[in-house]
Amino acid sequence: MSKEIVEDLQCNNLVLVQSDEDFKFGTDAILLADFSKKCRGKNALDLCSGNGIIPILLSGKTNISKLYGIEIQENSYNLFKKSVELNGLSDRVFPVCDDIKNATTLFGKRSFDIITCNPPYMKLGSAVLNDKDSKVIARHEVLCTLEDVIKSASELLSLKGRFFMIHRPTRMAEALACMKKYRIEPKRLRLVFPDKDSEPVLFLVEGLLFGEEEIRIMPPLFIKDESGEESQELKMIYEKCED
Amino acid sequence: MSKEIVEDLQCNNLVLVQSDEDFKFGTDAILLADFSKKCRGKNALDLCSGNGIIPILLSGKTNISKLYGIEIQENSYNLFKKSVELNGLSDRVFPVCDDIKNATTLFGKRSFDIITCNPPYMKLGSAVLNDKDSKVIARHEVLCTLEDVIKSASELLSLKGRFFMIHRPTRMAEALACMKKYRIEPKRLRLVFPDKDSEPVLFLVEGLLFGEEEIRIMPPLFIKDESGEESQELKMIYEKCED
Repeated sequence: MSKEIVEDLQCNNLVLVQSDEDFKFGTDAILLADFSKKCRGKNALDLCSGNGIIPILLSGKTNISKLYGIEIQENSYNLFKKSVELNGLSDRVFPVCDDIKNATTLFGKRSFDIITCNPPYMKLGSAVLNDKDSKVIARHEVLCTLEDVIKSASELLSLKGRFFMIHRPTRMAEALACMKKYRIEPKRLRLVFPDKDSEPVLFLVEGLLFGEEEIRIMPPLFIKDESGEESQELKMIYEKCED
Repeated sequence: MSKEIVEDLQCNNLVLVQSDEDFKFGTDAILLADFSKKCRGKNALDLCSGNGIIPILLSGKTNISKLYGIEIQENSYNLFKKSVELNGLSDRVFPVCDDIKNATTLFGKRSFDIITCNPPYMKLGSAVLNDKDSKVIARHEVLCTLEDVIKSASELLSLKGRFFMIHRPTRMAEALACMKKYRIEPKRLRLVFPDKDSEPVLFLVEGLLFGEEEIRIMPPLFIKDESGEESQELKMIYEKCED
């Protein structure tokens, strides 16, 4: 039997239901929600939504009135539904269990002002993954690739809609080129470094559909400060729900 | 009359002839030479070479036996020639005065193991630049664009040849996508920040012709340290000629 736990998200009393057997949210999700919280729009869709951490956090951090999350795995989707009920968000957050490749058919083209995504990071590569359990699917591009995500986002975004994604730095050149290919112009990027002497472990990117070609690179975001403690900025991101 | 000065490059007694009226080398050139000094190959070509700072520095920093530099502006090219003579490098460093768009015809396809470039950073934009003097040409894409540089490099690089460039962060997404378009896969990237709280002012990128799709992002390079002094790393880059 899998064990379910209810986690306090430290933001407007929001909680999240998680299970031992499924992919749990990490710093990535917190960073992506923080990075995208200043966006304006009437509705948002989170692709590869997992247990729904992003739409649930954005319900506390923004005024967006309709927050959808699409997740292909039924076990994660079920946890997502439970969290929505527990938080009393049934009129604002909407879990959908489907393949993101069907999203344009489901929702229609140009139907979202904001699209967020914390996708599977790892390419399948040449190794055969026999172990197609839910954690493998959440981490590897078994059921959707980076290009699938960006292509779907490009179709679903409204004119001048914004796309927010977090990914691994090893995929950064690929991601930026792919966004440009699908006319989501990269406009803002931030690298997340463990500390000032290390290579980054994550990057955050914001794209604007049909935007002009010019990107702003932000100051580095450090996980730890000089003394090896959690940095002041990361503490703020964890503690401060809204701006 | 323009005034010429002979500057000590602090590397193997190398000097550089510069003029008041032309574009002078800056930290960019020093950073690019340092970033590309570990490359291995029998020959190198520097595109948009200006007064030849990159090939001259690489003569001190590497064992590359033939270092070419192509520069379209005659006044800069003349300074470049003078520096080569003053340094006694006539058998190793070769200034060429021509348009980089003719470089493939001049040198032949696949003829260089290493290509470096510190190109004009600014797009022409909608403003008309009447003042087409040599500094404007060195800074703005009057005579060559980023795509011209990358296309030329892609034709000129030998199989598995390496491309090194420094540019402004606002052009980073465009540069990476353009490199991929011309099959120069971005493999290593470093951002240069004034300090840890500021947005970067430059980025360095290394590409590999027909390389595999995966990039390594390096730790941040800071110009100043916590106390506002020149950082230890930048000092080392200025002071240390070879590795």
